[in-house]
Amino acid sequence: MSLSARRPGSTVRVRVQEVDGRSVRHRDDVVATEEPLEIRVGWPGTPPRSLVVTMRTPGADFELAAGFLSSEGLLPSADDVVRLAYCSDPTLRAEQRYNVVTVDLARPLREHPTARYGAATSACGVCGKESLDELELRGCHPLPPGPVLDPATLCALPDRLRAAQDLFSRTGGLHAAGLFSADGQLLRAREDVGRHNAVDKVVGWALLERRLPLTDHVLVTSGRAGYEICQKALAAGIPFVAAVGAPSSLAVDLAATFGMTLVGFLRGERYVVYTRPDRLSD
Amino acid sequence: MSLSARRPGSTVRVRVQEVDGRSVRHRDDVVATEEPLEIRVGWPGTPPRSLVVTMRTPGADFELAAGFLSSEGLLPSADDVVRLAYCSDPTLRAEQRYNVVTVDLARPLREHPTARYGAATSACGVCGKESLDELELRGCHPLPPGPVLDPATLCALPDRLRAAQDLFSRTGGLHAAGLFSADGQLLRAREDVGRHNAVDKVVGWALLERRLPLTDHVLVTSGRAGYEICQKALAAGIPFVAAVGAPSSLAVDLAATFGMTLVGFLRGERYVVYTRPDRLSD
Repeated sequence: MSLSARRPGSTVRVRVQEVDGRSVRHRDDVVATEEPLEIRVGWPGTPPRSLVVTMRTPGADFELAAGFLSSEGLLPSADDVVRLAYCSDPTLRAEQRYNVVTVDLARPLREHPTARYGAATSACGVCGKESLDELELRGCHPLPPGPVLDPATLCALPDRLRAAQDLFSRTGGLHAAGLFSADGQLLRAREDVGRHNAVDKVVGWALLERRLPLTDHVLVTSGRAGYEICQKALAAGIPFVAAVGAPSSLAVDLAATFGMTLVGFLRGERYVVYTRPDRLSD
Repeated sequence: MSLSARRPGSTVRVRVQEVDGRSVRHRDDVVATEEPLEIRVGWPGTPPRSLVVTMRTPGADFELAAGFLSSEGLLPSADDVVRLAYCSDPTLRAEQRYNVVTVDLARPLREHPTARYGAATSACGVCGKESLDELELRGCHPLPPGPVLDPATLCALPDRLRAAQDLFSRTGGLHAAGLFSADGQLLRAREDVGRHNAVDKVVGWALLERRLPLTDHVLVTSGRAGYEICQKALAAGIPFVAAVGAPSSLAVDLAATFGMTLVGFLRGERYVVYTRPDRLSD
């Protein structure tokens, strides 16, 4: 079969009516594309099966798939990936082909995928403390000492991330995640309608580049820092997470439990350090 | 058994270090609580089973559970709810009890829950167009003509929502959804670490108050308007969605397909109308 379908772009042009007080203007606008991505996983002797469907902005789909698996503790290293490809399942229609990524693994997943992604089947993990315990069971360790950042370097990161946000500039609003070195160099920025997807894309890139664990790095997120963001950073070994927005209680708990530095409200020269301020120099 | 566990609050106090240039201050801070909520569903002859676990800010948990079921097309009316309660499952530990809500229904769910919430099992719904087709199959209809809003009324809504955001004021950042009448009266505002949860809470409130469908109402969301937000509004019959942030392509497609008015970037006297401008007066 041929993959002749048009690959979806990361933005779509729409016709809008813009109002400013009494002035009304008809113009073209650009919105961020949101389309489902199904991630399928297979290994020798086992045909690919569907693991999850996420609503995402197309682009960096392989990185998203790899990052999702890595964040969930299902993909220890790039060596476990035999092949990453858009799905060639002949039952898929043209418009679905670029919305299904198959990850061929060298060996079976450590556990049956539906055990984690299906409907919850037990009371396990239904309090914050247990969610953190589960991360330990999954193999997350306390983070190593990691880098010490200069406060001026930290404060420069959101502007550097914003400067790399091509889609934000064009659409006026999109989540972003940026991976930085401790001296403030941007290694990778990714955007997505889903904040968690942006992080998965960055982590997936690092995995495929064989840069995991990211023990000397800083993750910057354009929005709030909830549990999910910090959990993904932890799985990637990132010891320093800085958010432009507010953190949640469980994000703070996770950071405290695993020794992650968590900074919130990073705006201009101001920021709030929730945990492990020792990774910031005086 | 006694439900003696402490019910989790919607905020948590933490000790932080606030930095502003060279000034460093140690102080107490308040962060929004994020805890898992498991929704279980049972009906006569069938013991409750787990449907989904969502990370949410505690508060309005029954509304969240009812709204989630309603948004997913699983709960047509309040008459179908026999009882909403925190779970009395004796196997739950104290700290889990207020994180599990059981919805006792008068009759069986229309389909087996895991069919929808488990890992995806087919290629169905893996393109945007199909996601919209699925909504029709689920019983979503084109929206009725609905209200016509005065632009000045529309522009006043974000400030009214913000004024009702108690948790935002205390934590510095939390998603909110507000349900308004067409003349700008706020009926209900809800906040949550999850944008979709805030909408479910508002819809669940309306369902339990027997106000569905909300065909004369406006939903305002504090952030971006993605597919999920518009899908929940559609399921509740809301013909007008206004977001402070940007919409996604699939949200615009959904609005166009079902005749919903979708407004984005609602800030001050400015806004962008993506679909159905006829619900705004000149």
